[in-house]
Amino acid sequence: MSDSSSNGDVVAALRDALGADCVSTGDAIGARHFTNYGEAAGVRPRALLRPRSVDDVSRALAICTAHRQAVVPQGGMTGLAAGAEPGARDVVLSLERMQGVVEIDADAATVTAWAGTPLEALQQAVDDAGFALGIDLGARGSCQIGGNVATNAGGNRVIRYGTTREQVLGLEVVLADGTVLSSLNKMLKNNAGYDLRQIFVGSEGTLGVVTRVVLRLHPRLAAPSTALCAVRDTAAALALLRAARTACSDLLSFEAMWPAFYGYVCEHTPGMRAPLPADDGVKVLIECASGDAAQTAGRFEAVLADWLERGLIDDAALAQNAADAQAFWTVREGLAIDDLPGLVNFDVGIPPRETAAFIEACDRALKARWPGAHVFFFGHLGDSNLHVCVSAPYAAGERAHDVDAVLYPLVRDAGGSVSAEHGIGRYKRDWLGCSRSDAEIAAMRRLKHAFDPLGLLNPGKVI
Amino acid sequence: MSDSSSNGDVVAALRDALGADCVSTGDAIGARHFTNYGEAAGVRPRALLRPRSVDDVSRALAICTAHRQAVVPQGGMTGLAAGAEPGARDVVLSLERMQGVVEIDADAATVTAWAGTPLEALQQAVDDAGFALGIDLGARGSCQIGGNVATNAGGNRVIRYGTTREQVLGLEVVLADGTVLSSLNKMLKNNAGYDLRQIFVGSEGTLGVVTRVVLRLHPRLAAPSTALCAVRDTAAALALLRAARTACSDLLSFEAMWPAFYGYVCEHTPGMRAPLPADDGVKVLIECASGDAAQTAGRFEAVLADWLERGLIDDAALAQNAADAQAFWTVREGLAIDDLPGLVNFDVGIPPRETAAFIEACDRALKARWPGAHVFFFGHLGDSNLHVCVSAPYAAGERAHDVDAVLYPLVRDAGGSVSAEHGIGRYKRDWLGCSRSDAEIAAMRRLKHAFDPLGLLNPGKVI
Repeated sequence: MSDSSSNGDVVAALRDALGADCVSTGDAIGARHFTNYGEAAGVRPRALLRPRSVDDVSRALAICTAHRQAVVPQGGMTGLAAGAEPGARDVVLSLERMQGVVEIDADAATVTAWAGTPLEALQQAVDDAGFALGIDLGARGSCQIGGNVATNAGGNRVIRYGTTREQVLGLEVVLADGTVLSSLNKMLKNNAGYDLRQIFVGSEGTLGVVTRVVLRLHPRLAAPSTALCAVRDTAAALALLRAARTACSDLLSFEAMWPAFYGYVCEHTPGMRAPLPADDGVKVLIECASGDAAQTAGRFEAVLADWLERGLIDDAALAQNAADAQAFWTVREGLAIDDLPGLVNFDVGIPPRETAAFIEACDRALKARWPGAHVFFFGHLGDSNLHVCVSAPYAAGERAHDVDAVLYPLVRDAGGSVSAEHGIGRYKRDWLGCSRSDAEIAAMRRLKHAFDPLGLLNPGKVI
Repeated sequence: MSDSSSNGDVVAALRDALGADCVSTGDAIGARHFTNYGEAAGVRPRALLRPRSVDDVSRALAICTAHRQAVVPQGGMTGLAAGAEPGARDVVLSLERMQGVVEIDADAATVTAWAGTPLEALQQAVDDAGFALGIDLGARGSCQIGGNVATNAGGNRVIRYGTTREQVLGLEVVLADGTVLSSLNKMLKNNAGYDLRQIFVGSEGTLGVVTRVVLRLHPRLAAPSTALCAVRDTAAALALLRAARTACSDLLSFEAMWPAFYGYVCEHTPGMRAPLPADDGVKVLIECASGDAAQTAGRFEAVLADWLERGLIDDAALAQNAADAQAFWTVREGLAIDDLPGLVNFDVGIPPRETAAFIEACDRALKARWPGAHVFFFGHLGDSNLHVCVSAPYAAGERAHDVDAVLYPLVRDAGGSVSAEHGIGRYKRDWLGCSRSDAEIAAMRRLKHAFDPLGLLNPGKVI
């Protein structure tokens, strides 16, 4: 296959250095390398690199820097912010061949893995060794741990373990100029100078390429206890959150669903029987887990009974088995809404005290602009993280992302974050100012300039 | 008082801008502003600034930058690494007047406080509001929260809550040029661009001056259950750590003491009766706590009985009341060793698997160099953090810090960290290379240059 682009020499140089097998162009580049999850295919990039080693990555980046060639690092493409989407003139650097567990250290309670390892495979390996990983999210089957780290992924267990950032003890990163920063620390505490790993976690591939990670491990969990609770409104859900934080030392998830979401999903999920009646209240999925399933179950049942008695919850469905728990999670994951036309998915952060007012203002504003719109709210209430999904009858000339201009100013007014967990990517770049001051954005540019002075890593993303 | 220094005009400019009351020189500067904890007084700095507001700090730093005047930010001076020690030509910026709690948000479970707030006062305010702070350490009465953040302080509860970094949700920082970065986020998750707070946590005042912090809060703890356990050796202590992580979901502390330390402290602490006999084994102080003291006590007693039966521990003393627990902690805090001449205190990080070999090699090397030396090992085994305290009969011309040249190469050989929790400061700056590669140190310099291009903030510290 000939390469007729003006930067053809960079592709030739990459082939020379890495071998033809690591460098694809044209039709040899699979569509998954330029297709965001749940979207139509984008544009085919100039080339796809699939390195096999840190040294490959280092040489590739040095060559791209020498040729002033932009590089888009890529994991599983499930980030929902177009953060790994290439342009036509970009080179994609996929970590997919650098996968697998390097080591599980039971004394240090750590796992070391290659960046391209799928999250689910990593979870399985860790479980086999008698530990639990602190990261879990819906895309576990297709996302990669390097991408989880690069985007500081959130997910369903943040209330227990913190975000991905809190799991990362060590990191190996290759900078734009090919420098390898190998900081594969396994110690829980390390104050030997600036904590460089923090710069790269959540930087979405704009400051360096993650090649290996060391994650802390947690004790393996027995089967969780899971309940779906009914409360009157957002204020009642927040009161329940405070009670759960205190009463449930083994709290694993605290996930809220507002009425439109809960009702729609129960009605439109094939074979679903609503675990609790769909009404005007808020539903909260609570999960607890420890090393001892029976102990957790006993404590959790007592806590639920106490909450019912004290009126903290109006009703509760307690999962009697794994199938029940799975059914509750199926509602929460809400795949039924994905079929709605032009659906856009937001992952805003809203301070708890502002949540009720934000939901009301957001619902009102969107339906005023698009009467008949579906506006769904659900998410990780325990982490101040609200998902908003919108499907509206857009007029000719309107795009789904026109919702952004209605929603993000409301996030700004609430003192919230335009991204709690998915990251900024391309979709939210122009809205960063709703959550960050000019001084903060200028400081981010200082950082970008310090580590990628030519602006070659994932251009057009984040800032 | 006249100021005859060559930079006298900077002092005049600072007095003009902040008022004479905020700027001290000469004898008006209290010795505590140039005396590290436990050491003789150092040299008096050019001036002492005690600003009352963020705006004061911003104007002061802008003036110092305009005059190319070095500034040493200062908290409680308890960091043990000379990280806030000024030189004769430096201006000290003390945060001590900017203290107090700004807000406790019970819904978000956060506290916002001024940097100069003493840790103990903050703990008390948080406790009064029904929460627990995730930070606790011996210097709680004199250290300041801004200093805790600037040094990423560790302490006794890291195994439960993580380091100070994990507590910091929001941060307000003033850069060398006077720019105020006010990122007072209260949300558990926020991926709106680069996480700037991470750059400043643990940077020891070399990248910016912390003025306000937002910390996450945890549920208030009832009285803990505390036991002192005897195990054979380091390997047995690590096996016990693994068991405790699994069996004690409410584990709060896991602190080890090796025989020389335990024996010396028990013998030399006035009025102390050794809770367990001093012998050749390792002693482990274990503390558990939840919201319910009786539940914790019941579980903990059962766990101890199980460990005795399974031979995981050889003996245990269970605190029957708060006085017992305090006595155990008095041994662990080991103030009795502070009277030894020329004592030097190390806070190294050692990977668990290397701990036993490191202790043996370190003890042997130090006693070969200084026969008759006291070499004590104790610390936060659950966090891979070992304290080494050395008092040796130094010859004429030797200094206590000559121990560094024996100890840090052994840390390097063990793949450890020259500082697990105190930070690098001045004392460990020249030893950073034992724990960080040239590439890592070069990356740290990129960061320093990006945020303090003139090198005016805390010069000579960290790098």
